[in-house]
Amino acid sequence: MSEPALTIANLLRTQALKEACALWLKSDRYALVAFEEGKDPVTMLRSSRENYDAILLEQGAFRPEIYQGLREQDVFLPAVVIGDVTGRVEYHDAEVHLPADQLEQLPYSLDAAVSRFLRRGIPRGGNGANLASDSSTDTEERWKLANRLKDRLGYLGVYYKRDPGKFFRSLSQSEKEDLLRSLSRTYRDLLVSYFRDPAAANQALESFVNTAFFADLPITTTVEIHMNLIDGFWKQLKLEGHKNNFLQDYRLVLLDVMAHLCEMYRRSIPPDRPIATPQDNLNRLQEHI
Amino acid sequence: MSEPALTIANLLRTQALKEACALWLKSDRYALVAFEEGKDPVTMLRSSRENYDAILLEQGAFRPEIYQGLREQDVFLPAVVIGDVTGRVEYHDAEVHLPADQLEQLPYSLDAAVSRFLRRGIPRGGNGANLASDSSTDTEERWKLANRLKDRLGYLGVYYKRDPGKFFRSLSQSEKEDLLRSLSRTYRDLLVSYFRDPAAANQALESFVNTAFFADLPITTTVEIHMNLIDGFWKQLKLEGHKNNFLQDYRLVLLDVMAHLCEMYRRSIPPDRPIATPQDNLNRLQEHI
Repeated sequence: MSEPALTIANLLRTQALKEACALWLKSDRYALVAFEEGKDPVTMLRSSRENYDAILLEQGAFRPEIYQGLREQDVFLPAVVIGDVTGRVEYHDAEVHLPADQLEQLPYSLDAAVSRFLRRGIPRGGNGANLASDSSTDTEERWKLANRLKDRLGYLGVYYKRDPGKFFRSLSQSEKEDLLRSLSRTYRDLLVSYFRDPAAANQALESFVNTAFFADLPITTTVEIHMNLIDGFWKQLKLEGHKNNFLQDYRLVLLDVMAHLCEMYRRSIPPDRPIATPQDNLNRLQEHI
Repeated sequence: MSEPALTIANLLRTQALKEACALWLKSDRYALVAFEEGKDPVTMLRSSRENYDAILLEQGAFRPEIYQGLREQDVFLPAVVIGDVTGRVEYHDAEVHLPADQLEQLPYSLDAAVSRFLRRGIPRGGNGANLASDSSTDTEERWKLANRLKDRLGYLGVYYKRDPGKFFRSLSQSEKEDLLRSLSRTYRDLLVSYFRDPAAANQALESFVNTAFFADLPITTTVEIHMNLIDGFWKQLKLEGHKNNFLQDYRLVLLDVMAHLCEMYRRSIPPDRPIATPQDNLNRLQEHI
């Protein structure tokens, strides 16, 4: 491939995080463009948004007014927000969240961010903010971005074309272990927040499901991740002399994950055409000869 | 469509069952061919197997020797077996089972039978029977059938092309209600047999998952079917003064269904090609202009 598929505006502030993200996005597929600190992100992104396909943000690094400004200027880009999963929306409702200790999943999160962005059409800002402007220039702008992304990433209609190079089965042994460890951390966050913080649980669930989908992870592997974690909890509670029969309730978490994942797969099957007539078959043959 | 997509050898014996099946396969898509009673099915099918795409059987209607004969003569066709779901294999291990009180799902079961047949390659007989012959003529015969089915039903590689006309959302209100009632009966069979008869449960599970997949049923509808049934059990047990907390264990059933369905969807997504290069995009454009 002669040029990177995705050019990403890197708006991270913490130096260690910048370096870690660069490490996980070092493939030829990504070009990370750093932003000068001190400059106003709204002004900079407004004038150069055509250069970017996605944006990398850090939870809590900007004041809410910055995001408000971006929304008001109609600067919408697919976004991954790195930081604790709290359930809060920073920039817009198609953003994808990923904790800093799970960066192994960053390439999958970027795919998911682009996919959500394209599927949902025009995102809505967080905090119930309405879009300030809706001029035809801005709509055109978003349309151009969507088309460019579709073109580069091989979207077929609204159906996302996953990158087989990132499939679990294509990874090296150590990459597989990294990804499983990372997914296990995400699933643990999900279990811990499931009954006490639904908004945070929802972001963890989406993060897990996105990675499982874009990595084409076998379903049994998801079940194993669940079972290993529950097994660990069970042993720990037993050691500490606590009751552990409530752990059965956590099957609901796996059900929720499975239902989401299943629906995601279901919607990703290209639309079925009606059963072919002989004429269709002829046309298909002619197409391929 | 000028000719039916599937020609089905009707080997049912019970008159009422024959009529009921004819009713559920009355669309132009199916041609049901009745077999003369008294004639030997092995002799008849051996000489005319090229005329058929699938076969309709009745649980327990033939002696095991008949199926043994079909296998020995290398007569293998996609099969739906109507009758109680017992877990027993009648004809070969790619056959699909459907109880007589759930015939609303028959068109979906036929799709599933064809799909399983094509995916599994050469089926193996029940009772661990090995294939008697493996001459090149027989292999060629099966190959011809597979190609004919792929051609008629629009298979793409091993990926089944579902018929959108049978999708749940395409059905009329009364058809929707029929299908949901039928699926609910299948799910009930599954719940009842899940912990005490794994082989029967497995056939009920496959039957449910097949219909859900070929009807493109929303995942939430599967969850609702489960919840409604468990709710009914719960009320009944409470009325009768029994304990009902063990019902939580039945979440395992839903997990099992979801995992199967999810894996089926996952494997049905056409293989992803690597992310397109500019040259690929050009080629694609040229293909379509």
